[in-house]
Amino acid sequence: MNRKIKVAVVGASGYSGMELLRYLLVHPHVELVAVTSRTLAGKALTSEFPRFRRSGGADSLAFTAPDAGSLKEAGTEIAFLALPHGVSVEYAQPLLDLGIKVIDLSADFRLRDAAVYKEYYQHEHAAPNLLSEAVYALPEVRADAIKQARLIACPGCYPTSILLPLIPLLRAGLIAADPIAVSSMSGASGGGKTTTVPWLFCEVNESARSYSVPIHRHLSEISQELAIAAGRSVSLSFVPHLIPVHCGICTTIFATPVKGASLEQIEAAYQEAYAAKPFVRLLGKNQCPDTKHVVRTNFIDIGWALDPRAGRLILMSAEDNIGKGAAGQAVQNMNLVCGFDETAGLLAV
Amino acid sequence: MNRKIKVAVVGASGYSGMELLRYLLVHPHVELVAVTSRTLAGKALTSEFPRFRRSGGADSLAFTAPDAGSLKEAGTEIAFLALPHGVSVEYAQPLLDLGIKVIDLSADFRLRDAAVYKEYYQHEHAAPNLLSEAVYALPEVRADAIKQARLIACPGCYPTSILLPLIPLLRAGLIAADPIAVSSMSGASGGGKTTTVPWLFCEVNESARSYSVPIHRHLSEISQELAIAAGRSVSLSFVPHLIPVHCGICTTIFATPVKGASLEQIEAAYQEAYAAKPFVRLLGKNQCPDTKHVVRTNFIDIGWALDPRAGRLILMSAEDNIGKGAAGQAVQNMNLVCGFDETAGLLAV
Amino acid sequence: MNRKIKVAVVGASGYSGMELLRYLLVHPHVELVAVTSRTLAGKALTSEFPRFRRSGGADSLAFTAPDAGSLKEAGTEIAFLALPHGVSVEYAQPLLDLGIKVIDLSADFRLRDAAVYKEYYQHEHAAPNLLSEAVYALPEVRADAIKQARLIACPGCYPTSILLPLIPLLRAGLIAADPIAVSSMSGASGGGKTTTVPWLFCEVNESARSYSVPIHRHLSEISQELAIAAGRSVSLSFVPHLIPVHCGICTTIFATPVKGASLEQIEAAYQEAYAAKPFVRLLGKNQCPDTKHVVRTNFIDIGWALDPRAGRLILMSAEDNIGKGAAGQAVQNMNLVCGFDETAGLLAV
Amino acid sequence: MNRKIKVAVVGASGYSGMELLRYLLVHPHVELVAVTSRTLAGKALTSEFPRFRRSGGADSLAFTAPDAGSLKEAGTEIAFLALPHGVSVEYAQPLLDLGIKVIDLSADFRLRDAAVYKEYYQHEHAAPNLLSEAVYALPEVRADAIKQARLIACPGCYPTSILLPLIPLLRAGLIAADPIAVSSMSGASGGGKTTTVPWLFCEVNESARSYSVPIHRHLSEISQELAIAAGRSVSLSFVPHLIPVHCGICTTIFATPVKGASLEQIEAAYQEAYAAKPFVRLLGKNQCPDTKHVVRTNFIDIGWALDPRAGRLILMSAEDNIGKGAAGQAVQNMNLVCGFDETAGLLAV
Repeated sequence: MNRKIKVAVVGASGYSGMELLRYLLVHPHVELVAVTSRTLAGKALTSEFPRFRRSGGADSLAFTAPDAGSLKEAGTEIAFLALPHGVSVEYAQPLLDLGIKVIDLSADFRLRDAAVYKEYYQHEHAAPNLLSEAVYALPEVRADAIKQARLIACPGCYPTSILLPLIPLLRAGLIAADPIAVSSMSGASGGGKTTTVPWLFCEVNESARSYSVPIHRHLSEISQELAIAAGRSVSLSFVPHLIPVHCGICTTIFATPVKGASLEQIEAAYQEAYAAKPFVRLLGKNQCPDTKHVVRTNFIDIGWALDPRAGRLILMSAEDNIGKGAAGQAVQNMNLVCGFDETAGLLAV
Repeated sequence: MNRKIKVAVVGASGYSGMELLRYLLVHPHVELVAVTSRTLAGKALTSEFPRFRRSGGADSLAFTAPDAGSLKEAGTEIAFLALPHGVSVEYAQPLLDLGIKVIDLSADFRLRDAAVYKEYYQHEHAAPNLLSEAVYALPEVRADAIKQARLIACPGCYPTSILLPLIPLLRAGLIAADPIAVSSMSGASGGGKTTTVPWLFCEVNESARSYSVPIHRHLSEISQELAIAAGRSVSLSFVPHLIPVHCGICTTIFATPVKGASLEQIEAAYQEAYAAKPFVRLLGKNQCPDTKHVVRTNFIDIGWALDPRAGRLILMSAEDNIGKGAAGQAVQNMNLVCGFDETAGLLAV
Repeated sequence: MNRKIKVAVVGASGYSGMELLRYLLVHPHVELVAVTSRTLAGKALTSEFPRFRRSGGADSLAFTAPDAGSLKEAGTEIAFLALPHGVSVEYAQPLLDLGIKVIDLSADFRLRDAAVYKEYYQHEHAAPNLLSEAVYALPEVRADAIKQARLIACPGCYPTSILLPLIPLLRAGLIAADPIAVSSMSGASGGGKTTTVPWLFCEVNESARSYSVPIHRHLSEISQELAIAAGRSVSLSFVPHLIPVHCGICTTIFATPVKGASLEQIEAAYQEAYAAKPFVRLLGKNQCPDTKHVVRTNFIDIGWALDPRAGRLILMSAEDNIGKGAAGQAVQNMNLVCGFDETAGLLAV
Repeated sequence: MNRKIKVAVVGASGYSGMELLRYLLVHPHVELVAVTSRTLAGKALTSEFPRFRRSGGADSLAFTAPDAGSLKEAGTEIAFLALPHGVSVEYAQPLLDLGIKVIDLSADFRLRDAAVYKEYYQHEHAAPNLLSEAVYALPEVRADAIKQARLIACPGCYPTSILLPLIPLLRAGLIAADPIAVSSMSGASGGGKTTTVPWLFCEVNESARSYSVPIHRHLSEISQELAIAAGRSVSLSFVPHLIPVHCGICTTIFATPVKGASLEQIEAAYQEAYAAKPFVRLLGKNQCPDTKHVVRTNFIDIGWALDPRAGRLILMSAEDNIGKGAAGQAVQNMNLVCGFDETAGLLAV
């Protein structure tokens, strides 16, 4: 498969956008035809991202204004939207109307139900008609639908780290749907290039803090997908924390095994779900993942342990919030959509 | 109260020992008469701790060999033991026999039951007779006993961050004893000066990882103290994580409120327990503590939130693992033992 | 000396301001009567600085608008100005007119010559008449003048780390006035709470970069003071670097010893200048200072080495940019102005 | 060119070794046939480097004992030596005797003169006969010799960052050979997996410190190569610093332009030397490099500035100490030796 597909990145100025470019610039089947940014239009790509100079043709790219017609004229076949929540929704329909497939990294198309969207995001969804078409694109769970889709909603960073460990066990009926408690830690790139005091070096460095307690917006998509896996609603508490690393999510989940569930059954459920999946690495029982082994990759590492005294099952995962949790997964989805090898452009570590 | 008490620090070469010296060197009621270290005996204190030069008389101190008789001759009235677990136990009895009160920072005297000690620490306790005398010294919970004690067992760093948020609610019957799930993050000073690969800068930096899953030794003392508070055994899961900060523990607890328990009752329980306690700062509901506000202090900050969808109560605390979690609390206990103001020497931030 | 002096901090919302408050809140001879901030007026001090809750009376303080009359009414005897460059100058004259002594942490009163100010700061000085009165307040160099002054210009952070190693050797004629090359590294608190992309955690973390090359504004005051010490103009190159630490400056200076200058003479010059100075710690030859031993203190550590092959003398210093380089030195100057012990409130490490 | 060459890495357990594997595992023209480690022999490669699981065939590799005969049997054509200084020398001759080309990352073959080696490394060189054959392999300076060589001595990390900015200007006679002063900062991976206290997270974090003052061993190779470029001996002072980043070197050089040398001439010299070199990125005058744009790449970024007041030329470079400063440059040299495209396997950022 040596064909190159023409790709555009809309809204490429943030950290996920940069990571997306990092993958796409050297992807064997991608020709990057446009990189847009409202604020940076006209500037050279490498003036914003000096890291990319002399690499993968970056020197010849300049930011353009985001405009569906221009992207079409440039030959765009697939457009990645690396835009803030609430902005992606403006771009999807015009692009789809021009026959351009859309891979969205924002939260705009992740929920099936516009009412849930409104509850968590506090405003009406701007294109509710697209919600039924969009595919919540966890490649390990929904590859067939992804391959057929023209509107791809990439899962959030926290949700990916939570859903992949939980779904096989809920599907297999090995854990109870209530209670599930999740504690996650994320690096500061999760906050994007937000220029406010809490994101300054001096505020994040030597600091660990929870936030968005008790309700983080990502709960909406996590609950949606866990309910599908469990076949019933799931009762989940989730507390995210900010820690002083550039990227990486470390997630620890406390679940309750159903009576009689054994470690063997748990391992078997994981093996069945993920042994053939190239980006899920099963560490085994009592093995703790470490974000430093997954950052800048599309891998997610999963470990688990049974605490017999408390009767609790502990699930642990590590991924890169802007990798498997965003840009890497988006490229993985592109590979599926385009019929490329699922791992194309994603195996450098 | 201007009397100065003669104090020795036994085993002062680690990070908790250094923090202890930092407090004691400028404590208004302390005269530091001896600082011991088997490996550093004969060396100037400031050769190991250049930070202390020209400060609080540190320049005139040298490490000596740890020997109960010599400490007695130096006039020691109180000896802090900042020794590894399993080593403190050798020093306590000889010191007590000479009339020297002992404030131990290790785990050696924290458990009431020698059998539980053996289960968690995998060897027989070397001085089981002392376990009934030792006081598990959480000053906010057991001040009266501390004032009378001659053998003080300072709580562990994680336990302090977990017990202080939970005890008032368990005592008041506002939360269930099962399930309780705890996720904690700690800075690398918690590992001491362990010279193995996992503690190197390049292994801790840009890394987040859980460890000691599913059973961390601190579970033993946490379970012991929670059971006392609840009047029944408590089912607790606990997962510690290492994050790239020098010091600080951020703890997040998932508990289940009993039917009808309200946020008002929770706040009232906290106010009753801690309003008059100088080192517990109650942040209020939906307020998240940040380790950067407590590191290098003896404060613990506590926040809480009710997650009505999942029916879960989230408790959050932040402290310094080598401050309120070790050296600071040890000095606070000394203040109680000696009848000093509880905050003496502990209010610089 | 148990009298307490009434002190105000004008512009207390930044990192130097916070460090100043950290010292002043527990200073034995200070009563903090006012803390001002245009943007935070009306808010509790601890709402901006949660670290200070329950400490040194911080809970009873609220930010007020900066107004000379109100400060006078509050009884202010000494006002610290922790304001941006170009803003301090507006406050000095009104405060002086009311008999309030001013200790300024900005660059506004550091230069003797308004023309040099204009050259480096690109605008006319707003109160040139005050320049001749202000004292460039390096306490180790100019204590007598400081004691008499009513307008104190605290040296910049980089200048302090450069001047203290160089002045004794230039005075003693042991090094040439040309060439002198200086490379400094500073923590991110040096940038203040600047909410622009380059100061975000993700931009500073895992980054080392020079900036303000070839001419940094601090060159003006460094050149002024070195010329005074040398009795002739001095040819200095200076390159500052930003590194991922909260605070701390590490300075390395390359100088040329005059023919025949020996290490003994160099050490003697340092001993003569600093042996009796409480905050200068002379490490000795071939000894390298480490910022971690001086951060959060008012100490500066100085080492030196002779490179015989290249015929170069290497001078090295470490200080805290917001400590000895700003807030600590300001308090040290206050101690001199008020006749307190020079070390009062500054010896906790 | 689709042939794959059979490659072995001898001594692959350290940080440079890991970086080498990171490049080689996905290099399009490399088949990794052996990975050796005396201490890890028999263990799976991914047990030491969990990051590599599921990537580039790493799962099928195990460490073997380093033995020239076995490497030959495995078909090794090129052996990288990522061994400590003084150990590489034992392996080179036996490998060369078997017809295996050697690319050494240690300092063992960098010096032309065994007497200089002894002076700086304090022991006799163990294979002085190989010194005249080995090529000091800066690809931008000595590509033709590298292509013919069978024993490649890769330059040190600091030297690479210092030589590349200086050589074109010395060759062009634009700067004086005396004085040159160099201040460099390096990340902690430069220290390797040294398990001693100074390399622990808690000692490196929030610390900046110079070391090896006044004479660092790298001065020997720097002086050797600068003298070749200048056609005379060069007087250089060099101070390295350790800063809390994983990897990256930031170097700042103070040189003296010869009378009449202009910025235009300096830029022209750089353009002539490096415009066609794929891994040297010239930033232009007054542009400061940032290590975060080069870490994990084989690029070196170079900027420069003229300080007219002090009559000094400031040269600045940034590279990855284990990339362009070690493993990346080693792979670049392999590409030259094998006749591959110089950038093969090195352009992912």
